Amino acid sequence: MYDVVIVGSGPAGLSAAIYAKRAGLSALTLEKNPMSGGQVLNTYEVDNYPGLPGINGFELGMKFREHADKLGCEFKEASLISVENIGAWEEKAELSAASVDAKSKKDQEFLLTTDQGEIRARTVIAATGASHAKLNVPGEAELAGMGVSYCATCDGAFFRGKVTAVAGGGDVAVEDAIFLARSCEKVYLIHRRDELRAAAVLQKEVMALPNVEIIWDTVVEKINGKEQVESLSVKNVKTGETKELILQGVFVAVGIIPAGEVFRDLAECNEKGYLIAGEDCATTMPGLYAAGDVRGKKLRQIVTAVADGANAVTSILEYLAN
Amino acid sequence: MYDVVIVGSGPAGLSAAIYAKRAGLSALTLEKNPMSGGQVLNTYEVDNYPGLPGINGFELGMKFREHADKLGCEFKEASLISVENIGAWEEKAELSAASVDAKSKKDQEFLLTTDQGEIRARTVIAATGASHAKLNVPGEAELAGMGVSYCATCDGAFFRGKVTAVAGGGDVAVEDAIFLARSCEKVYLIHRRDELRAAAVLQKEVMALPNVEIIWDTVVEKINGKEQVESLSVKNVKTGETKELILQGVFVAVGIIPAGEVFRDLAECNEKGYLIAGEDCATTMPGLYAAGDVRGKKLRQIVTAVADGANAVTSILEYLAN
Repeated sequence: MYDVVIVGSGPAGLSAAIYAKRAGLSALTLEKNPMSGGQVLNTYEVDNYPGLPGINGFELGMKFREHADKLGCEFKEASLISVENIGAWEEKAELSAASVDAKSKKDQEFLLTTDQGEIRARTVIAATGASHAKLNVPGEAELAGMGVSYCATCDGAFFRGKVTAVAGGGDVAVEDAIFLARSCEKVYLIHRRDELRAAAVLQKEVMALPNVEIIWDTVVEKINGKEQVESLSVKNVKTGETKELILQGVFVAVGIIPAGEVFRDLAECNEKGYLIAGEDCATTMPGLYAAGDVRGKKLRQIVTAVADGANAVTSILEYLAN
Repeated sequence: MYDVVIVGSGPAGLSAAIYAKRAGLSALTLEKNPMSGGQVLNTYEVDNYPGLPGINGFELGMKFREHADKLGCEFKEASLISVENIGAWEEKAELSAASVDAKSKKDQEFLLTTDQGEIRARTVIAATGASHAKLNVPGEAELAGMGVSYCATCDGAFFRGKVTAVAGGGDVAVEDAIFLARSCEKVYLIHRRDELRAAAVLQKEVMALPNVEIIWDTVVEKINGKEQVESLSVKNVKTGETKELILQGVFVAVGIIPAGEVFRDLAECNEKGYLIAGEDCATTMPGLYAAGDVRGKKLRQIVTAVADGANAVTSILEYLAN
């Protein structure tokens, strides 16, 4: 029985592993892939993790993992199939509200079923991250990290003075277009419908920008380029007309999919599927914490993920001390 | 007029500078010392900033600063004397509630008075950090720098082969004792309670050191010496027993005081003097954000400071867009 099982080995999970080890907790980190780092691994260059300017994402993932290894953190390559709370909450029907509250903190126990067997833990950190929805068009996978990006905040600075496009019509897409317009020569905002879903203030702002051109009723058909993005083939869904936009960067902002399904029966998620938890990372289930991109929060970055890992462990230390 | 002036160049301020620069904001970072890094500079070894295991604090501070320099962030060595809001809020008495709300976001402007002149900014990030609490006992002020220190990393080397004491029971106190034990003949760790607050691994480590003696339930009453520390008068708070410890150095590690005074007229602070702000770093004053140790929050670490810097800039981007 571990004090804490950390599910996921991206920046949030690895930070939690480091903090848990230093705090003297018995901790196990589960990772479904043979490589730690999560989404960072697939990032060409990371330039916003202070202290390691312009580092390759793969290298940063390795550095995080090496740090955890150096401290003697325990890892297991396994996919989580289900998590059950086999502690006090099972009996709550028999207990008064007050005693549930007292007992839930004392006797909580989680049973994690993985493809590598069962694991028991007093607390669990969900650090399963999220993934960006894809356009699923030719060239997208091939040119990922070579002009195709899923994060303007992360990668926008690499396209200073260049021409870029954002695909999408929601808040994130419009925010990305506004963000990119500050430094790009020109930004196309490509949306498949004739109106944006984004908040009115954002729409107003983006429409006032002279270097943003909104291309309505249009979908991306293909991303072209050899070793870098060179152009975009787009098609108007109403007229059937196709054209090619010459540009250097494509930002895909058609949604984020949090990887929190496995925890949904245990704790509340918001309407987008993120686990509801504040800065302390405590979910609605005592003993279960959410850290990193799977947590419902405003800014999903490496710096906020590593902070979550530390905050989750700090909350667990308090929880276990009670 | 800057989009944002960042006050302080510790991890929170430098992270904010990096994020602001990458977001295309015009930003200036004020630092009162000729070195960036804040409290990190005075830390012997940092082992919980993921990716840079076991790094010397001074070196980490330099790495953060180099990162900001590489991106072309603007710095100014200046001490902030006062901050005034000379924007919409001045006129609010004349406006209806609704128009204040609209105007306060549009026309906010801050005037920062420094020892190097005046600076104007649309938004301000308070990243002024915190400083070391004092024991407030006779001899402490008189012998500061003559055996009394608040930084084992900075001054420990002067006490090689000597006898020292650390006052405190948290992480920093225990870390200081471990650090000093490497070169001092003997180290007393004086704590007013019967258990340490420090992390379990640290406690285990300090208790295993043969030349560290923990003196429980004890407070420092007086620091004695003429031109150098010569001894310490301590008192057991349970038995009332007093004794004198012959030693040459006293390291005070009894907590930190937030450096938020200069912002107190602008925004609300909590009972300990920290600026009240949530994870988004927004204070009670529109346009003023608090990041890092000066913000009222649970966990003050490098990882949470760098997250704050990013969150503050993200909040500012939204604020300026409205």
